[in-house]
Amino acid sequence: MTQRYKKNQDTSYTLGITLTIELLLTKAEYVTLVYLHSEFRESEAYDKIISLCKDYKISIVVNDKIFNKLSEKENCYAIGVFHKYESTIDSNQNHLVLVNPSNSGNLGTIIRSMIGFGINQLIIIKPAIDLFNPKVIRASMGSIFHIQFCEYETFNDYQKNHKNRSFYPFMLNGNHVLGDIEILEPFSLIFGNEASGLDHRFIHLGTPIKIMHHHLIDSLNLPIAVSIALYEVTKKSFKKP
Amino acid sequence: MTQRYKKNQDTSYTLGITLTIELLLTKAEYVTLVYLHSEFRESEAYDKIISLCKDYKISIVVNDKIFNKLSEKENCYAIGVFHKYESTIDSNQNHLVLVNPSNSGNLGTIIRSMIGFGINQLIIIKPAIDLFNPKVIRASMGSIFHIQFCEYETFNDYQKNHKNRSFYPFMLNGNHVLGDIEILEPFSLIFGNEASGLDHRFIHLGTPIKIMHHHLIDSLNLPIAVSIALYEVTKKSFKKP
Repeated sequence: MTQRYKKNQDTSYTLGITLTIELLLTKAEYVTLVYLHSEFRESEAYDKIISLCKDYKISIVVNDKIFNKLSEKENCYAIGVFHKYESTIDSNQNHLVLVNPSNSGNLGTIIRSMIGFGINQLIIIKPAIDLFNPKVIRASMGSIFHIQFCEYETFNDYQKNHKNRSFYPFMLNGNHVLGDIEILEPFSLIFGNEASGLDHRFIHLGTPIKIMHHHLIDSLNLPIAVSIALYEVTKKSFKKP
Repeated sequence: MTQRYKKNQDTSYTLGITLTIELLLTKAEYVTLVYLHSEFRESEAYDKIISLCKDYKISIVVNDKIFNKLSEKENCYAIGVFHKYESTIDSNQNHLVLVNPSNSGNLGTIIRSMIGFGINQLIIIKPAIDLFNPKVIRASMGSIFHIQFCEYETFNDYQKNHKNRSFYPFMLNGNHVLGDIEILEPFSLIFGNEASGLDHRFIHLGTPIKIMHHHLIDSLNLPIAVSIALYEVTKKSFKKP
């Protein structure tokens, strides 16, 4: 694995010290190799990586060239290479469903918010950006290693496999307002593509919701809309200080 | 203006048809020139740009080379060049205060959310990313032309000029929870830098607020946190359908 990431390869990688530690702490069984940069100074983080690799019998290779090839950022000192893994979704849990997400930074940011608000089941309807794209991993700040996920070819395939739940498609013309209606669990919050949103047929599915905003903007940015929804539907579940 | 944007130049530019139309509709008095690409086909948008430039006596130049120089994206067919303008802040209105924002995409996304939730007064405490960076303009989707703004060298300078208002610094260790406390107007919602947040001294200013989230993540992404706050504090003001 000495070239830039491609969707069809069976490994991916974490770029950076913090991400690589998170990978080792959560998914060590899939890690094949850790690259360290020769300028990575001894430190608490350095010791942690060395110790985790020792515990899990993962090889460490010091190789500066690989950093030039794989990383666009200068201050990257660790790369964790891992086999992409499969995951499953729990029908009894709450789901976030993204239909045709197309931007890697957005997908990573959404995953970070999911973990922030305690929703860890992600369904992606294809075509979609590759979940294991290193840019998704980076934008997720490592949260990607805490989610369970499943990709489906169509929304119908997802729906057939997950019945007896409440569907909430988020649409600009939804006839209910986020914050005003009770959300029944287990729920599926459903969001469309960045540019095109959800197909109009979703208006007939479950309870279509809109997030109220002024019409000087056409819509909210996708990760913003998803995160506001996650915040609103989970906020009662947080213990207050 | 035939080179990439630099912070110290006195003009900036919009990249793309929609942004350029928004610029002409809102800030025509500052526009010096509109570039069109020779492959920009006649269309409703094309007619609109021609007509607006005619109304405001703005020159149109067809020049494909400038697009290669200024735009990284292939499908850019219009560029609007404008003088950077000054703006003022209204002390009676609600404010969003960003202390040392450092990422252009984040700043643009935040401005889009501001306009979405009806808060149009932005204060930026330096050092900070340049508000007129074309990447900010693009990420704002044109919302930047609807805000009033002011930059201050220090937070104290801002505070001295805007008294008799309620300050709400957003901090991970805030002792109040967003959604649980009443927000008094006119308010200042205050957010720190992407990486470092607000300095600890802000804990003694006004009413420090936190957004509850799980501790598997260190913090929410900045535009996410700002947008959730804007959503929460403005949602009562929206007329329900």
